[in-house]
Amino acid sequence: MESLLAELRAAVGAGAVLTDADVTAGYRRDMMPLAPHGQPLAVVLPSSTEQVRAVVRACAAAGTPIVPRGAGSGLSGAANAVEGCVVLVTTKMDAILEIDPDNRLAVVEPGVVNLDLRAAVEKHGLFYPPDPSSYDWCTIGGNLATNAGGLCCVKYGVTTDSVLGLEVVLADGELLRTGRRTVKGVAGYDLTKLFVGSEGTLGVITRATLALRPLPQAPSTLVATFGSTAAAGAAVSRVVAEGVVPSLMEIMDRTSIRAVEQHLRTDLNAGAALLLCQSDSGGEAARRELAAIEQACVGAGAELVYATEDLAEGRDLLTARRAVLTALEVYGAWLTDDVCVPRTRIADLITGCERIAAEVGLRVAVVGHAGDGNMHPTIVYDPSSEDEFARAQRAFDEILGLGLALGGTVTGEHGVGKVKREWLAKEIGPVGLRVHRDVKRALDPENLFNPGSMFSP
Amino acid sequence: MESLLAELRAAVGAGAVLTDADVTAGYRRDMMPLAPHGQPLAVVLPSSTEQVRAVVRACAAAGTPIVPRGAGSGLSGAANAVEGCVVLVTTKMDAILEIDPDNRLAVVEPGVVNLDLRAAVEKHGLFYPPDPSSYDWCTIGGNLATNAGGLCCVKYGVTTDSVLGLEVVLADGELLRTGRRTVKGVAGYDLTKLFVGSEGTLGVITRATLALRPLPQAPSTLVATFGSTAAAGAAVSRVVAEGVVPSLMEIMDRTSIRAVEQHLRTDLNAGAALLLCQSDSGGEAARRELAAIEQACVGAGAELVYATEDLAEGRDLLTARRAVLTALEVYGAWLTDDVCVPRTRIADLITGCERIAAEVGLRVAVVGHAGDGNMHPTIVYDPSSEDEFARAQRAFDEILGLGLALGGTVTGEHGVGKVKREWLAKEIGPVGLRVHRDVKRALDPENLFNPGSMFSP
Repeated sequence: MESLLAELRAAVGAGAVLTDADVTAGYRRDMMPLAPHGQPLAVVLPSSTEQVRAVVRACAAAGTPIVPRGAGSGLSGAANAVEGCVVLVTTKMDAILEIDPDNRLAVVEPGVVNLDLRAAVEKHGLFYPPDPSSYDWCTIGGNLATNAGGLCCVKYGVTTDSVLGLEVVLADGELLRTGRRTVKGVAGYDLTKLFVGSEGTLGVITRATLALRPLPQAPSTLVATFGSTAAAGAAVSRVVAEGVVPSLMEIMDRTSIRAVEQHLRTDLNAGAALLLCQSDSGGEAARRELAAIEQACVGAGAELVYATEDLAEGRDLLTARRAVLTALEVYGAWLTDDVCVPRTRIADLITGCERIAAEVGLRVAVVGHAGDGNMHPTIVYDPSSEDEFARAQRAFDEILGLGLALGGTVTGEHGVGKVKREWLAKEIGPVGLRVHRDVKRALDPENLFNPGSMFSP
Repeated sequence: MESLLAELRAAVGAGAVLTDADVTAGYRRDMMPLAPHGQPLAVVLPSSTEQVRAVVRACAAAGTPIVPRGAGSGLSGAANAVEGCVVLVTTKMDAILEIDPDNRLAVVEPGVVNLDLRAAVEKHGLFYPPDPSSYDWCTIGGNLATNAGGLCCVKYGVTTDSVLGLEVVLADGELLRTGRRTVKGVAGYDLTKLFVGSEGTLGVITRATLALRPLPQAPSTLVATFGSTAAAGAAVSRVVAEGVVPSLMEIMDRTSIRAVEQHLRTDLNAGAALLLCQSDSGGEAARRELAAIEQACVGAGAELVYATEDLAEGRDLLTARRAVLTALEVYGAWLTDDVCVPRTRIADLITGCERIAAEVGLRVAVVGHAGDGNMHPTIVYDPSSEDEFARAQRAFDEILGLGLALGGTVTGEHGVGKVKREWLAKEIGPVGLRVHRDVKRALDPENLFNPGSMFSP
């Protein structure tokens, strides 16, 4: 153990190897309170690909597991330490190595903060779409590892849709380059998209080539309120059926609305549900899209519809959506779940969450990305009460079961990590699990990376 | 061998097992003349997933390799028979099982012809983007196996971008279900995108859940002519820099233009290069996009720019592009190459192809999807001359080397198959090749599926 620590210090410098338990405690877990976490042997912060390779080789030789980690903003415990592991933190590798506006791509290290990349490419009139809620502090490496989503996904897809290629340190310390710098390419298996979303179980991503898009037009915004959950769900279906693809379409349920009204000391005039939509198509196209959305909402029985092209007003309207989690903190701690259901089943999911809330006797507020069916039912509980925590856990699991029963998936964007391993097995079944194990064994035969995360070996 | 044939007949019915060499000859190779092909033991045409499983189990037990095959429109020899194999043809599994307009998805069997799916979903106001040139006879199964592209890719991506989930028969006959019916989902590794583009080397795809889009607006069309290749290349770069994403952007070089002019007995008034662009954004948005493209072309020195919103006229303008391969047949047989380069290097690729054409003393016509840098230099040769064929092969390889040297890839959309195995190795390097072999071995330990295709085991 001491010899491993010596090797790690030789590899990354003594200052980049943390072993003091008080210090390493900050690297033991991410933002998911339900996931197990152990005590790491050490936390290392390499500054280069070569340092990552040296760390991986040293750990492999010592048989010490590695848990790769970004900023720690995850919501599934994927980056939680396992007992006696080395937590490999990539936040010091934070260089934007290249922005190529002519080929609309950027090459970055994994520690770049999502918001910093967005700001840097915006100067070139370009846009990096993936926008997880934690975009002001999460890193690209974590986004890649979890295939992060966000509010943009309804129009622009998730992280994997913006990745052209990767550089990955494998379990034996070899350096794999996947993908390419061109827009298209089918030379070999799509290893890029295999590593994206693999949650640190297959290797350490040390560099990424990302596809950029032209900066969209300034968004126009529409808000619609509904007297019933069913009517809001019907409005989403009508928007989809109309063939409109908004750049944002968020839903808030009754519980979220009430919490935000109390927090912001305002009346949202929204009974059972609120839809927030944007179009970033600009000009007449945006007007056409918002008009179609308005018609869909009115047709589904909206009580009130209001649209604006004004940027500041649009931002104000989104304040309600962004304030939900803060508003819920008045009532206790929150636990955010993450299911994705077919877009036609959103109302069923919200109604089901109301039933589950009543059963466990806790508040469950549903907010979500209505445009792609990705819902975040958020359970509020008293963290000082073991009983409430147990009931929150029960609600968390029941929501996952409900998502599956509605034809959905147990995770739309947060990942499996260490909190949904049993649910992954339920969703993909024994053959799917076997193939996962076969792929893991092929790339990481000694189970070096993030052992026991996602699925047991 | 007789016992395997008996088992195959028992599995799929005697009429669906072809062994007559005259009949199986039609299933020995695809449309790529350079790729090697062997004599199959038998060609089987299963009608259901269960029949595919039975065929796979029988072949696995007998140690007889399986080459999965769609319509045979491929251009890399991926579906070419290996000596003594069973060619497993999926064209009889051609049912569109479901179209769900509310969730914008379709569930299909692999034998559905691309055009038939397009037509079926269009009745619901929906759009299946991938449009390889062979779309009127190629099948979805082949499109999935090769991750096929087409003219749509500049705006809508390639096949993998439209796939939500798959059903795959594995080497031991087990049935794997990957992905989901929801728009988003990150439960487990992205096995869906691992199988898409794996060219029949990892399993047999028996069902696919495909994402659909709203039907776009009727396209507006713009044509621009240039006195030099460099000016046309600069126009493409300016369009990209302007942040416009056309729904189609094709380029034709001097040799293509001359061939088409002779074939259609017309004067295209295009000196060195011609750009064809479309916008399917409709109305003012389309006008804005085409105006920006026009400005980019004029700024780059276009000699003539003409735009039209008229559908029939737009179709006429595209005739020249669609006529290239037919027009080249006057001069001999053609051999289409497929490289993708950074969009800024298109002019360099065309100029390089002119040099290669002069060196080998053959006509090389370059057409391509300029919007994503995916070029198809097409070599014309006399098939009755061994010498010309050898020179065509030399040109084919030199173009691949040129593509790599320009920072591109050796295949943008046709695949590696049995014609570019050495080039895959060159492009991805020894570590990439090793990981490919590890993944292949994990999923197909006995090397049952398409052995020796893409890379040697």
